[in-house]
Amino acid sequence: MTIQSRMKNLSPKSQSAKRVRPVRSSRAKTSAFARRLLNAWRDLQLPFLQTTVVVAVSGGADSTTLLLALDELIAAREMQIHLIVAHLDHGLRPQSKADAEWVAKLAGKLGHQTRIGRVNVGKRAKTTRDNLEQAARQARYEFLLKTARTANAELILTAHTLDDQAETILLRLLRGAGAEGLTGIDPVRPLVTQTVSLRERLSGRDLAEPNSAHHSTSSDLLLARPLLTWARRAETEAYCRLRKIDYRSDPMNDDEHFARVRVRKQLLPLMASFNGKVVEALARTAELLRDDLSVLNQQAGLLLLEATAGHKGETKVPSLNVSVLADAPAAVRRRALRQWLSQGRGDLRRIELLHIVGIEKLLLGDKGGRVAELPGGARVVRKQKRLELIVKRRPNSAGEQSENVR
Amino acid sequence: MTIQSRMKNLSPKSQSAKRVRPVRSSRAKTSAFARRLLNAWRDLQLPFLQTTVVVAVSGGADSTTLLLALDELIAAREMQIHLIVAHLDHGLRPQSKADAEWVAKLAGKLGHQTRIGRVNVGKRAKTTRDNLEQAARQARYEFLLKTARTANAELILTAHTLDDQAETILLRLLRGAGAEGLTGIDPVRPLVTQTVSLRERLSGRDLAEPNSAHHSTSSDLLLARPLLTWARRAETEAYCRLRKIDYRSDPMNDDEHFARVRVRKQLLPLMASFNGKVVEALARTAELLRDDLSVLNQQAGLLLLEATAGHKGETKVPSLNVSVLADAPAAVRRRALRQWLSQGRGDLRRIELLHIVGIEKLLLGDKGGRVAELPGGARVVRKQKRLELIVKRRPNSAGEQSENVR
Repeated sequence: MTIQSRMKNLSPKSQSAKRVRPVRSSRAKTSAFARRLLNAWRDLQLPFLQTTVVVAVSGGADSTTLLLALDELIAAREMQIHLIVAHLDHGLRPQSKADAEWVAKLAGKLGHQTRIGRVNVGKRAKTTRDNLEQAARQARYEFLLKTARTANAELILTAHTLDDQAETILLRLLRGAGAEGLTGIDPVRPLVTQTVSLRERLSGRDLAEPNSAHHSTSSDLLLARPLLTWARRAETEAYCRLRKIDYRSDPMNDDEHFARVRVRKQLLPLMASFNGKVVEALARTAELLRDDLSVLNQQAGLLLLEATAGHKGETKVPSLNVSVLADAPAAVRRRALRQWLSQGRGDLRRIELLHIVGIEKLLLGDKGGRVAELPGGARVVRKQKRLELIVKRRPNSAGEQSENVR
Repeated sequence: MTIQSRMKNLSPKSQSAKRVRPVRSSRAKTSAFARRLLNAWRDLQLPFLQTTVVVAVSGGADSTTLLLALDELIAAREMQIHLIVAHLDHGLRPQSKADAEWVAKLAGKLGHQTRIGRVNVGKRAKTTRDNLEQAARQARYEFLLKTARTANAELILTAHTLDDQAETILLRLLRGAGAEGLTGIDPVRPLVTQTVSLRERLSGRDLAEPNSAHHSTSSDLLLARPLLTWARRAETEAYCRLRKIDYRSDPMNDDEHFARVRVRKQLLPLMASFNGKVVEALARTAELLRDDLSVLNQQAGLLLLEATAGHKGETKVPSLNVSVLADAPAAVRRRALRQWLSQGRGDLRRIELLHIVGIEKLLLGDKGGRVAELPGGARVVRKQKRLELIVKRRPNSAGEQSENVR
């Protein structure tokens, strides 16, 4: 893993002054876990100095470990960052208030600032018609984003582990996902908080978004998971025991009504009987596919730029040239269409392969006037030699997919 | 599935006269299974007229069904092809001779030619140091190829089903494969039987090989799996019962010492408890990744062409420009290196990601004289600004990977 991420960029990169690691204090004695976190931090090119970092802490073993290990590195002067511990009380379980108090107390004891939020996820889910898991994830994301904005932070951390990555990949695989799904959770990605025009986006360094592993410098806020590429859940639990911290347990993590819990408790153990390193193997697959995607998304961006040439009219996003799209390989055309929809709708929520295939059907033949309906009220119309996207509702203000934020 | 494969090529394609389907006889009454086979045949653009086709028949439910359904379609004049039934007796089980006789008898009764081969796989495995499964697959492939050459056939068929595809994808996933592995078995691919020069290959339509879903016209022999994209194993068994054919059973198919059997009997049933259509979902993933790969391999071909510019010297394949490779995205560079190795060595057997990463390390820095050793005695040498491939042994005469042939 380390070799691969180090090998990826073979051209030397200039490092900003902020990213140079401070000289390690010789007095500090850091744990093996914290030293591995430090390596991952460096691999992800996260900032070492004079920066405010929001760390999401639920109180479970993973996030408690992330907080404690960061605290170790700060104490050892391996990094000079200002931590803000963020916890959202979802109000879904009787014990949730106690969890929030536990996190606040731990953070206080360590001497870090705390932000506790409270939300009624049940009520929210009814309004947005999302399921509870989706609504909770969306609420967490908004809370973290707001916390980061208020504190002028440039980095948000979540404590996803290698196990979370493997579970996510398998859940996607069970649904028949393509490469995007199988890359699982991104180790680091920019949080795009304002909608930019298609041409602006295509002309800049954002070409490879939204799936590039390499974060763009044009975003001022990053979401990173510094445990994702290496830490096993058993290791975070062991670390908490080592530190004598009695982390909180969420009973939903044992509830086999959730597919994710069954993946964890049934599917992964069976797969481990074939290959004891299956979790690492799945993560390697995800990393290889992420490399592939950065190339394909860049190609798709170029195709989209080519297809928008000759646009006239008043639609929010430029119309597309039918024959440019029809001549492109399916793998590139479909991603170009997704980028176009993402710009026009604000996100890709509920857009499935069948919708993309529906748009592709409009490319066949010469007849105009045909329509492909999309979830949420948008529609794509074939007008002679061009495709137009008609969006009714306002796009999501954050311009951000809710996926992968917990 | 059908929509997707129909949508893939949106530009109209010229069909050769040979591929036009003959008018269906109104008297014929074909089974639903045979009609679905006919649809798949059309989707894969396989020839309908005046062609000799070698069909591999082990005597199991899948291959017996393929033979019988093809026979139905020939009898119904849906296709006018000349079948040669090929069976290789691997000599691994006491019943294998009886299997061969059973296949010969069935083929004779149907009025098709039969070619029975015999091989000592155990002895062969000792010589080649492959395991039994690999040696058997390689022996089958060679037998089918020889049979096709002798009969002047342009098509070889195997009876891999959707279940075989799902099992293959999962076995690859368990090893942490990249996109190449996860595309599983190719529905159709050319059998490249002679080594062409790198430049010849790059300049022609073979650019997207070896993983393109679209077969190249430059090869005169195709390997196709017309059951792969749609037929479930349970359907082939049902079809045999319908035709009152008591197909042969291979006890190795129930031997849980084989990982493939455990995938079939344990892993897939557990995954089906999450998604009853998991086999279809895995096949969809494979199809999406195959589309991605055809683009990436084409990019890799272009990169390789660019990297060979400025070559001087006497190596079998041109040397490569270090900085051209170093500047390319990892996903394209690694595939370009694989194509280069495949040309120089004749195949990619035993080449793993770690070997490619080893070659990538030679791209770092300015120092020449460094070497990356490869399995089978080949080595890559950094000489100043270029990489040279030094091959000791003669490449495999067939120039063909043994994967996916059973």
